[in-house]
Amino acid sequence: MTVTVKEPSQPSVLTIAGSDSSGGAGIQADLKTFTALGCYGTSVITALTAQNTTGVQGIHPCPPEFVKQQLQSILDDIELKAIKTGMLHDASITHVVAETLKAHYGAAVPPLVVDPVCVSTSGHTLLQPEAVATLVSELFPLAALITPNKSEAELLLSHCGSPTKLESVQDMLPAAKKLLSSGCKAVLLKGGHITANMNEVKSISAAHPEIHVVHEGLLGENMEILQVSEEDPSVKGLVIDVLQQADSTTLFVQPHVESSSTHGTGCTLSSALACALARGKDFVEATRMATVYTHLGIETATPIGRGHGPLNHIHSIVIRSVPQPTPSVPHPLTRVLIESCRETWKAYVQHEFVKQLGQGILARECFLHFIKQDYLYLRYYARAYALLAAKSSTFSSIQAATGTIINVLNEVSMHRDYCAQWGITEDELKATPESPATTAYGAFILDTGLQGDSARLIMALAACLLGYGEVGLWLKKEAAQPNSWVKLEGNPYQKWIDDYSGEVYQKAVKLGLATIEVMAVADPPSSVRFQEWQSTWERCVRLEKGFWDMSLGLL
Amino acid sequence: MTVTVKEPSQPSVLTIAGSDSSGGAGIQADLKTFTALGCYGTSVITALTAQNTTGVQGIHPCPPEFVKQQLQSILDDIELKAIKTGMLHDASITHVVAETLKAHYGAAVPPLVVDPVCVSTSGHTLLQPEAVATLVSELFPLAALITPNKSEAELLLSHCGSPTKLESVQDMLPAAKKLLSSGCKAVLLKGGHITANMNEVKSISAAHPEIHVVHEGLLGENMEILQVSEEDPSVKGLVIDVLQQADSTTLFVQPHVESSSTHGTGCTLSSALACALARGKDFVEATRMATVYTHLGIETATPIGRGHGPLNHIHSIVIRSVPQPTPSVPHPLTRVLIESCRETWKAYVQHEFVKQLGQGILARECFLHFIKQDYLYLRYYARAYALLAAKSSTFSSIQAATGTIINVLNEVSMHRDYCAQWGITEDELKATPESPATTAYGAFILDTGLQGDSARLIMALAACLLGYGEVGLWLKKEAAQPNSWVKLEGNPYQKWIDDYSGEVYQKAVKLGLATIEVMAVADPPSSVRFQEWQSTWERCVRLEKGFWDMSLGLL
Repeated sequence: MTVTVKEPSQPSVLTIAGSDSSGGAGIQADLKTFTALGCYGTSVITALTAQNTTGVQGIHPCPPEFVKQQLQSILDDIELKAIKTGMLHDASITHVVAETLKAHYGAAVPPLVVDPVCVSTSGHTLLQPEAVATLVSELFPLAALITPNKSEAELLLSHCGSPTKLESVQDMLPAAKKLLSSGCKAVLLKGGHITANMNEVKSISAAHPEIHVVHEGLLGENMEILQVSEEDPSVKGLVIDVLQQADSTTLFVQPHVESSSTHGTGCTLSSALACALARGKDFVEATRMATVYTHLGIETATPIGRGHGPLNHIHSIVIRSVPQPTPSVPHPLTRVLIESCRETWKAYVQHEFVKQLGQGILARECFLHFIKQDYLYLRYYARAYALLAAKSSTFSSIQAATGTIINVLNEVSMHRDYCAQWGITEDELKATPESPATTAYGAFILDTGLQGDSARLIMALAACLLGYGEVGLWLKKEAAQPNSWVKLEGNPYQKWIDDYSGEVYQKAVKLGLATIEVMAVADPPSSVRFQEWQSTWERCVRLEKGFWDMSLGLL
Repeated sequence: MTVTVKEPSQPSVLTIAGSDSSGGAGIQADLKTFTALGCYGTSVITALTAQNTTGVQGIHPCPPEFVKQQLQSILDDIELKAIKTGMLHDASITHVVAETLKAHYGAAVPPLVVDPVCVSTSGHTLLQPEAVATLVSELFPLAALITPNKSEAELLLSHCGSPTKLESVQDMLPAAKKLLSSGCKAVLLKGGHITANMNEVKSISAAHPEIHVVHEGLLGENMEILQVSEEDPSVKGLVIDVLQQADSTTLFVQPHVESSSTHGTGCTLSSALACALARGKDFVEATRMATVYTHLGIETATPIGRGHGPLNHIHSIVIRSVPQPTPSVPHPLTRVLIESCRETWKAYVQHEFVKQLGQGILARECFLHFIKQDYLYLRYYARAYALLAAKSSTFSSIQAATGTIINVLNEVSMHRDYCAQWGITEDELKATPESPATTAYGAFILDTGLQGDSARLIMALAACLLGYGEVGLWLKKEAAQPNSWVKLEGNPYQKWIDDYSGEVYQKAVKLGLATIEVMAVADPPSSVRFQEWQSTWERCVRLEKGFWDMSLGLL
């Protein structure tokens, strides 16, 4: 049984945009978004900027032929699932981008999101005025989606001979339709700079029942319990984005958020759109996902810099607590567990009891005491697996747990035979009072099973299974050394060593290892949950050591 | 009770390096690493490359004064916790970087990792030969750590007048010491291109007991059970990195991995080092974390491109299943749960039973049937909170669960009074046979509590608490409409509506909401675990609807 990691695929996406040294916008925002959404990012840089949260201090455009060379290097080698463009700086760069994409892909350009960046938030010109014509005539026809904001849309409309001021949602609807006629497949007209309220949405819905409205971040029907303030959100102000496709219009309604962490909002949105399109989402779902991602990026941002700070791009991810298995480290969870309490683990495996047993000098009464308590412990252990079966949700996990109960029952009957060989009758076994160390360990496992889920119970059961396997292999390994302190021949406990180092038991160990490793891969624990696993494991390792202590000291 | 998100801080880090269009190396690899390790990335681009996995097709260096301008924009605005440099291209860029850092920080440069990139994996010169002197004399003295590989170390040693061929770990030790004398605080001499075996490590350890050895990815003591092959790893080949500090030497030993996904290994390692130093880790711990991150990046990579593919930078992260709470969406988990079964939720809240109750036309016997079954249900409900108390791990959670039991017991006595008003005696209540819908719902909650952890049980209990709260608020909201269909005055069930829409019950709803939202923030569920929560929630919503069905149909 090997642990295989089924990673979700990482579609490759490309950004063609400027570089923002401060990391909040441009290809930096794009690459961060791609990474946080699980995509593989590539980038063609059109211009370098010296920039920070207070503004753009300088621009160094890249020669168009070098833009082409960067793009060609990527196209020649990497299969792209989506592309976005941001700041293209001038007409010749815009032209070379369109031309190179057309030459490579013909009519089959991957989903292309064009963010028609013209002016920075801080007012810096990011696209030469004469480049607008090139953008519209050459790049828009290749685009799946263009994502203008208010001022970009006004510029584009003016260029298309329909100068319009966008002051309301009502203005946005015909504008989005007009922009669609420029040749792209869809238009996402962003309303971030246009205040709107719910009454406008309602009157649009009434007049145009065919318009679909997506409320993200607003309360839907029967969410009265989630209302946190008496304030009507329609009064507070909404942000409405209009998605215009050939045969449908969709409004995306979100509450307006007051924040100064908005540097790179447009870049982030178009990148998130590219990620969603790369995964095959349709325009509506892609827009929903991208607006939610961007909105959360603004709302969860902490201030960076003295001006308009960047969004938080990593709100969508959690750092793993347990590394993934690899060919060279196939058991990362078990390794982390053992390393987390290395000294206690060693004190358990290399216990004085084990050493004396390996040397064959362990006092007979200590071994008998151990064997009798182990017998009593196995009753808890079998019950714990029965509890695990009861906590299972599939027939296969019920079967696995039940299989272990049967193995334990077999082990118990071996125990009886074993004890008989040492002169202990079954009645004597049954009459043996339980040591506190036995009760502590057995009851702790059952308590863990009552308290937690099956993963936590499996953790509690692992220290015994794996530890005895380790003791067996350690003694066997030591025995193989020249002039070893471990004595196998003539050792009264040889059978015990053979049993735990033998094939049957080691097969169970391998299965146990695979079980816990698969568990951590399938359902990666948060740091809090991993902490619970770790403390359960460590506690059991200590209880195992206590069991040897008890056996040596006859407590 | 508000849900607050305690985000781990995102230290700001800076990379000063080249751009790799294909995204595997350069500032792209650096930004991906920063993001995947939870840091905020900024970047100064020294040169653009047109590059892919097969090689470097072109280089366009940035004018030194523009490198300075980018750097200055960042330094003026953002507080950096660590800096790394990669490809610096030529002497004038190297000089301007050193000069600008010195001018800004004086003697207090943040931890600076200098990756002395000279030649690409594919053999392309990335640092002009005459720049080596500038690198050594101007930048190394500012560095916390330099990270040369074999060929870079040989070049640097030759420059320092000690030409040396590095063929073995034995050669690396004096070389690392020699490099340290160049003025940096520490040297990480990377052994990726030097084959080594465990015998060499052992003989070094024997001769130099003061040298600390960190085995990452190799089995430690008492890990026999994790041995997957009989093969001795010392035969297979190891990679050994040497960390030389002023007063100590540390060897980092890892198994050698055969892989073609190595494009950007050096960039990734130095970026990961910068992240760890930014969080205040010491050199040994930072090196351990960075080598593990990089090693896993190689081992978990899937092929991209036709040549030496990039590392997988996102092995360290998991995509969140539940968004974080924000001021505009303070209850993201509950919202996702409700939206995940919107129709069923509506069928429960706006049930015909509820509507007739709101109108005051509900048949008396239906209400009495409901009230009697609800009484029986509350016994399960109280037991479920008792089970939750038993599954708790803190006194405060035991107290919270117990508080709810007491509330339920009070509700039960109200129920009795209520029933008495309707002419039902306590004996009649006790003698009422339990409906299958009541048993199904009650037993499902207890079964969930047996099967899962306390989070899952809380999920099972939420639909009842929140749903009745929603029913109360919905009826109250509808009643407030002009000419409402809901009738409060003279409604025989007015008290019921008042109770569930009233302050006391709604306070409990708010507390319940906060509890589940806090749970998702503190212990973010994996997608598998979230799926369990969702299906538990949905099941309970259906069972609630079934309870109204039963009450209407008198089943």
